[in-house]
Amino acid sequence: MKIAVIGTGNVGSVLGRRWAQNGHEVAYGVPNPNDESISILLKSMGPNVRAASVKDAFQFGDVIVLAIPWKAAENILSSGVELKGKILVDCINPIKEGLKGLDVGLETSAAEKLAAWAKEASVVKAFNSVGSEVMANAVVASQAATLFICGDDLRAKKTVSKLGLDLGFEVCDCGPLTTARYLEPLGMLLTLLVVKEGLGSRIAIKLLKDKQGF
Amino acid sequence: MKIAVIGTGNVGSVLGRRWAQNGHEVAYGVPNPNDESISILLKSMGPNVRAASVKDAFQFGDVIVLAIPWKAAENILSSGVELKGKILVDCINPIKEGLKGLDVGLETSAAEKLAAWAKEASVVKAFNSVGSEVMANAVVASQAATLFICGDDLRAKKTVSKLGLDLGFEVCDCGPLTTARYLEPLGMLLTLLVVKEGLGSRIAIKLLKDKQGF
Repeated sequence: MKIAVIGTGNVGSVLGRRWAQNGHEVAYGVPNPNDESISILLKSMGPNVRAASVKDAFQFGDVIVLAIPWKAAENILSSGVELKGKILVDCINPIKEGLKGLDVGLETSAAEKLAAWAKEASVVKAFNSVGSEVMANAVVASQAATLFICGDDLRAKKTVSKLGLDLGFEVCDCGPLTTARYLEPLGMLLTLLVVKEGLGSRIAIKLLKDKQGF
Repeated sequence: MKIAVIGTGNVGSVLGRRWAQNGHEVAYGVPNPNDESISILLKSMGPNVRAASVKDAFQFGDVIVLAIPWKAAENILSSGVELKGKILVDCINPIKEGLKGLDVGLETSAAEKLAAWAKEASVVKAFNSVGSEVMANAVVASQAATLFICGDDLRAKKTVSKLGLDLGFEVCDCGPLTTARYLEPLGMLLTLLVVKEGLGSRIAIKLLKDKQGF
């Protein structure tokens, strides 16, 4: 397959390198194809990889992989590059500087609204990203599913965590209550997979962690 | 532990039943504690479970589990129930009727904006919910991580799916491009776990599926 990768950061370099190893032809679209550091990087990826201008890379690829910062995306797509019939792979998370949130998206969450209505209580987001048939039996495909929780009160989270362990879940503390802005969409995603994509109600998410991650 | 469960739907009934089996005391807060169908349901859960008014259940529980529809939440919390020092467990996904989206949250996504700027191309959301060190080696904790993708063009998704398989991922088609509204927050969540919660960069999501789900 002819693949254009736009972006030579962590994501772009790994994807292009690995696809090239699999025998795909990869062109990196870069501002200056003759740049020396780019040449060195791409040479390390072997004969299936070349540098090109952004315009030429779009021309070349059947698949265009966008591995660029969100703020650069509109300019590139509006610069007259060839788009007709191309497959654009969008790897972008439109994350604001300093991880302050998504630039396109949620400004609040149900959990934070609850906390505003119940100021005297400690709100913990939990059990919203697993279906009831998984709560009934948290072992799915012979593995314990992960329960994602978040909240601002550590003691409250410890308590809720214990309640999750009681049901056989592994528990992942996702930080402050604002993280509910991302756990709520996760609940939505699982719901869509069950209801719209026909995966059945015995699906669940497991967080995999390599040992060297600890 | 004393647990009040508000809501006797799928989620509320499973949680209360299972915690009661674990020896916790559970009170269900319901509009009418003497309702016959409620009595029958709760009796099936054994001696650790009782019915109560919503007000009494809030009084009783150290932990209050909200397993109610989003639209009912504000009224209940504003009705003068005891909240001081309580742990509120928010299981709610504020999902609109007909699964049309989240009532609190995203009205669009980066992927949909890209599609508007690149009308002649097929946009597929992919590779946004796995970090680059997982793209480099998709086997995490001895298991293949799941790659979530979505888009409106089936052929384009098939192509991108193949590219994910090439990297050793399992691939999960999450439906139309609008699902990027939920995949983008998933990317944000994973990023927070790596960066803010210190889980390291070798974490990934796996979708577990029981065989009976197919």
